[in-house]
Amino acid sequence: MLENYSPKIRKALKGIKIGDRISITKGKKKYEGLLMPRTETGDSNCIVLKLDNGYNIGVRSEGKIKIEKSKKPEPKEIKEELEFELGKEKFKKIKFDPKKPKVSLIMTGGTIISKVDYKTGGVRALEKPEELLTNIPELRDIANMKDILSPFKKMSEDLNYKDWQILAKLTAKELNKNQGVIITQGTDTLHFTSAVLSFMLKNLYKPVVFTASQRSSDRGSTDAFMNLICSAHTAVSDIGEVGVCMHATTDDHYCFLIRGTKVRKMHSTRRDAFRSINEIPLAKIWPNGKIDILNENYKKRKDEKVVADIKFEPKVALLKAYPGSEPEILEFLVKKGYKGFVIEGTGMGHVPTRAEKTWIPTIKKLIKDGIPVVIAPQTIYGRINTNVYSYLRVLFHEAKAIPAEDMLPETAYLKLGWVLGHTKNLEKVREMMLTNIAGEITKRTELDTFLV
Amino acid sequence: MLENYSPKIRKALKGIKIGDRISITKGKKKYEGLLMPRTETGDSNCIVLKLDNGYNIGVRSEGKIKIEKSKKPEPKEIKEELEFELGKEKFKKIKFDPKKPKVSLIMTGGTIISKVDYKTGGVRALEKPEELLTNIPELRDIANMKDILSPFKKMSEDLNYKDWQILAKLTAKELNKNQGVIITQGTDTLHFTSAVLSFMLKNLYKPVVFTASQRSSDRGSTDAFMNLICSAHTAVSDIGEVGVCMHATTDDHYCFLIRGTKVRKMHSTRRDAFRSINEIPLAKIWPNGKIDILNENYKKRKDEKVVADIKFEPKVALLKAYPGSEPEILEFLVKKGYKGFVIEGTGMGHVPTRAEKTWIPTIKKLIKDGIPVVIAPQTIYGRINTNVYSYLRVLFHEAKAIPAEDMLPETAYLKLGWVLGHTKNLEKVREMMLTNIAGEITKRTELDTFLV
Repeated sequence: MLENYSPKIRKALKGIKIGDRISITKGKKKYEGLLMPRTETGDSNCIVLKLDNGYNIGVRSEGKIKIEKSKKPEPKEIKEELEFELGKEKFKKIKFDPKKPKVSLIMTGGTIISKVDYKTGGVRALEKPEELLTNIPELRDIANMKDILSPFKKMSEDLNYKDWQILAKLTAKELNKNQGVIITQGTDTLHFTSAVLSFMLKNLYKPVVFTASQRSSDRGSTDAFMNLICSAHTAVSDIGEVGVCMHATTDDHYCFLIRGTKVRKMHSTRRDAFRSINEIPLAKIWPNGKIDILNENYKKRKDEKVVADIKFEPKVALLKAYPGSEPEILEFLVKKGYKGFVIEGTGMGHVPTRAEKTWIPTIKKLIKDGIPVVIAPQTIYGRINTNVYSYLRVLFHEAKAIPAEDMLPETAYLKLGWVLGHTKNLEKVREMMLTNIAGEITKRTELDTFLV
Repeated sequence: MLENYSPKIRKALKGIKIGDRISITKGKKKYEGLLMPRTETGDSNCIVLKLDNGYNIGVRSEGKIKIEKSKKPEPKEIKEELEFELGKEKFKKIKFDPKKPKVSLIMTGGTIISKVDYKTGGVRALEKPEELLTNIPELRDIANMKDILSPFKKMSEDLNYKDWQILAKLTAKELNKNQGVIITQGTDTLHFTSAVLSFMLKNLYKPVVFTASQRSSDRGSTDAFMNLICSAHTAVSDIGEVGVCMHATTDDHYCFLIRGTKVRKMHSTRRDAFRSINEIPLAKIWPNGKIDILNENYKKRKDEKVVADIKFEPKVALLKAYPGSEPEILEFLVKKGYKGFVIEGTGMGHVPTRAEKTWIPTIKKLIKDGIPVVIAPQTIYGRINTNVYSYLRVLFHEAKAIPAEDMLPETAYLKLGWVLGHTKNLEKVREMMLTNIAGEITKRTELDTFLV
């Protein structure tokens, strides 16, 4: 475990091992704490200590330094924290209260079940996802979460339609015996999974709560605990929809519950990265259990049997139209067996038209051949308009492209895959794409939904 | 001009023509105003009147209605407004003050030089872009804008690198004789053009202000006038950069000036659609000429000769990686002669890796063959991180993909085209992509730049 320290440091640390309490005297200063492992990167002459306040500091070895084993015993909680960071902690068995409402927890992968890897400075998966729960005793007061399932462990960028089908089937099964389901995965594609499950779970009137974390649970700034606590409150609430429950702000105040088809990861790292697009979030969920409904337009819990309707056509592509883009990709993908396209158009839905490489004839031909082409808003916020400009009228009324209305491009992509799983009839596809199925199309956008 | 009215209405309007002042008595109500043309869509039994307050209303013909020519003369300004809407107004010759600082105005197309077309309900181009200026007398007090150029008239989705090259050359020429340049185009791809000109204008120390409008100038809610006035103030200011000057809020209070490489159209229709991504806007520009600098990190005006460095490789593609996406598009495009790629990765820069169709081997092969692959953040806000997860390390350190840092995907696309116009040497390309050239890379992102 001393492997990333320089030979000089390793020599000075002879007889001392990771986790030992030591003191370092450097000039007039004395540092005391537990010796920590180093990451592969950074200054290998810098000794990492965990102080009694829980923080880690680096003490650079330069000039004269003296290192000794400390005689003072360390505080118990610090020892425990170190063991957790080193992955050595002994887990208490989790006891749930059988009188609480039953909620199933489906865990698949991602930062929420990871911890910092001191070897690389990166993160690695917890060996047992249940480890996480032992650190959140609050959950036991909310729900009986003894049904913990882990159908697969994958990074979220690697999920595909087969994983979504597994999740939908498992979720339906769990929902039909318990009060709600919480699903955790990596944040990157959380909004893809929440959208596709919104379509796959038919006759849904119970909460399906997606959550995740942007910072692993072994970091002081982790969002995992509050997100899981708020998700548990949501899972026993009266909101019978698929939603994403994540930090609303950078503080640990409350979470937003956002409809599964209207949510997007809008920042690579912030804890409040998930935002509601083109409608206000369904609710504020406070860690103490208070739920402030923000959007009255939600489905209420009912005791109905949910059905997993998982037919899905994976040969759908999500592409971008932009100045300089060429439509020949479409024809190439059709030859490769693709059955439908979602194109992110500019502004209200434009594609290059009078440009050197014009898109409309290609789109028109594909649609004539029975392959649906949906145009979604590249601006993310806002909606497609099929009338304002003359080439919008040509694209939508003459070539018969399908407007995604105010659907997110990602949601339109998953909806089209799901619709094509059910029918290849173009008129039927158009009708289903233009019909609101799971809150993905909002007829009128309220003014206060931009960048909130 | 009565063509979109129903036969019944046309009969009732016998002897009356568009623009005539009429009164309609319907039950106990009486409406008086100028008869307006109808659009193709909507209720052809509804008579459109322009009231004396300037608003248009529709009066549905049902039950007993009486239509008469009115004897009361209409207010002069209403007559003028109607003439403008009908495209019949007589233009005053524009007189500029030769003592004011000289600013060139380059107009290319888009909503800012359009007006509502009453035939289709859509918009069509003004015949002469100068028409617009006659309606903004304030401009004459700010600058001498007699140099009005219109190198081409195109919808913004149709622009390509040749247009950008024409604009860059023309802008450099104008800047070397005048104090600043204002460029107008359609909003859809305004941020593409502002980004590419940021790279093409070398040794730039004068303002190049891009502006546009989301609502045409014949609508009461137009943003064209205030955007142009604020752009004129910017063009004579001490800010020596390429920027986009558009409404900051939905009110007509002030504009934001946003750096040309850090701006994105984030809403399909709102007047405040243009937002600064990953840095605060450069300044608030008030229509009265007040300029509040928000970001001190800008280049100041200097009397230097600007050079148009327009070499550009158009064979670059901007693609998206997402669950279910397949990397074979890359190989197809390479065969088609493509020289480089920008891929929008998920989260901190992931591409599907352990998925059925893994991207990393394809990317690695392309890079080995000398074709640069840049990974940009699909989340829009935030930045690429090459270390946190193990597959990020494989993608960036082993396969040698180039991280876009906190660059917008659109900016990365234009930068890569411009860089490849200068060198095909992979190491040189990497170095240039990782070097901040025109404010496109911010080393540290301030906390208060998310969704503002």
